[in-house]
Amino acid sequence: MNGRASTVPRALVLFSGGLDSTTLLAVARSEGFDPVALIFRYGQRHSVEVERAVSMARHLGIDHQVVDLDLRSLGGSALTSDKVEVPHDRSEAEIGKGAIPPTYVPARNTIFLAYALAWAEVLGIADVYIGINALDYSGYPDCRPEYVEAFERMANLATRASTEGGVCLRIRTPLLRMTKADIIRRGSKLGVDYARSWSCYSPVRREGVGLVACGRCDSCRLRRKGFREAGVPDPAVYESKDP
Amino acid sequence: MNGRASTVPRALVLFSGGLDSTTLLAVARSEGFDPVALIFRYGQRHSVEVERAVSMARHLGIDHQVVDLDLRSLGGSALTSDKVEVPHDRSEAEIGKGAIPPTYVPARNTIFLAYALAWAEVLGIADVYIGINALDYSGYPDCRPEYVEAFERMANLATRASTEGGVCLRIRTPLLRMTKADIIRRGSKLGVDYARSWSCYSPVRREGVGLVACGRCDSCRLRRKGFREAGVPDPAVYESKDP
Repeated sequence: MNGRASTVPRALVLFSGGLDSTTLLAVARSEGFDPVALIFRYGQRHSVEVERAVSMARHLGIDHQVVDLDLRSLGGSALTSDKVEVPHDRSEAEIGKGAIPPTYVPARNTIFLAYALAWAEVLGIADVYIGINALDYSGYPDCRPEYVEAFERMANLATRASTEGGVCLRIRTPLLRMTKADIIRRGSKLGVDYARSWSCYSPVRREGVGLVACGRCDSCRLRRKGFREAGVPDPAVYESKDP
Repeated sequence: MNGRASTVPRALVLFSGGLDSTTLLAVARSEGFDPVALIFRYGQRHSVEVERAVSMARHLGIDHQVVDLDLRSLGGSALTSDKVEVPHDRSEAEIGKGAIPPTYVPARNTIFLAYALAWAEVLGIADVYIGINALDYSGYPDCRPEYVEAFERMANLATRASTEGGVCLRIRTPLLRMTKADIIRRGSKLGVDYARSWSCYSPVRREGVGLVACGRCDSCRLRRKGFREAGVPDPAVYESKDP
């Protein structure tokens, strides 16, 4: 990833290959950056998202780095433990009501952003994009604006630049105040092809097709609602019909 | 590590097996906590410290957890890259003058504390001890009090407890304002056996003995100076004489 001569500034983009971070890549480009995708293999049960994210980064011709970290030994989340069930068929009201669901992974965004801080410092990158949003956000505490501001403040006391001068870190959250429908509209305008994006927490294997989205976990529900509200066709293949 | 019935509150202790964190374990105990040691295998060239840390935790009969994370792929530091040399024979004035040395690992404390935050949340632990100190600290930016305060503030916006109530995180840094000599005096009073502690960044293999400390890297120099000033004999075996 080093040694390139370019006048376009680089930005790190936390990239899961999902709907939000796929849009985020396009937004970072539209804001004048050359994105570098940081992809985390953290022991998520939907590990297909890592393969899809790498494949999408390659398809888009962007630099990427897969970071291996073990959040599975931590447990404590439906996304990293086989002992905790991913909720299905929750109503939109239930998903949106603010209680923290079992898919919350303790300190995940803090760990991701800590790695981003390290990579940003090594690569001399000042801008980090993270696709969190405070509206359709499933109730995760580390998706709130005050959390992001506090991380940025801490980050700017943590690195070489904070004592020797130089590049400080800016965390960019362009999706923060957008609904899923807003995000899809924005991405569609920017020419994003959502066919390659992966949202499902709980994929299902279908004969002759491979893995398809369940259509019933919170992430699928929020995605379907978003496409419906945006009036844009959702190219994802689902195991179940939209209820 | 789960399921124990004890009235003594637990505390997470970031533990490298070095002089500072060995003292820290004893301080945490003296402050009324049952310590749980969090040991990081992060690709450090002095990987012997992980073995020694595990062995010491076992010897002391304390719970411990080894966290594997890859900081080697990041590069950028003499401690994680074979391409960057560990400095030797720097004078005490050079070590103390505040410039950041090549042994600085980008965002290491932020990554360590992010994992500690995750473990603390999962285990329901409120107190995290980290053995940073702002005096004999080699000039690392993430060893300053203002950094620790900013991390704690961020941490208390990051977790389930911050939206649902419950255990908030307190980062305890009892060594922050102590010199190495103060730390050694404190540990000696608490009965710490420093023979098992490991400080060297750049160990040397000696026939018939195994790995011994180089005696010349910054970490060895600060350790030797500390024991000398404290008037306590240093039980470490060094390859070179104290200059």
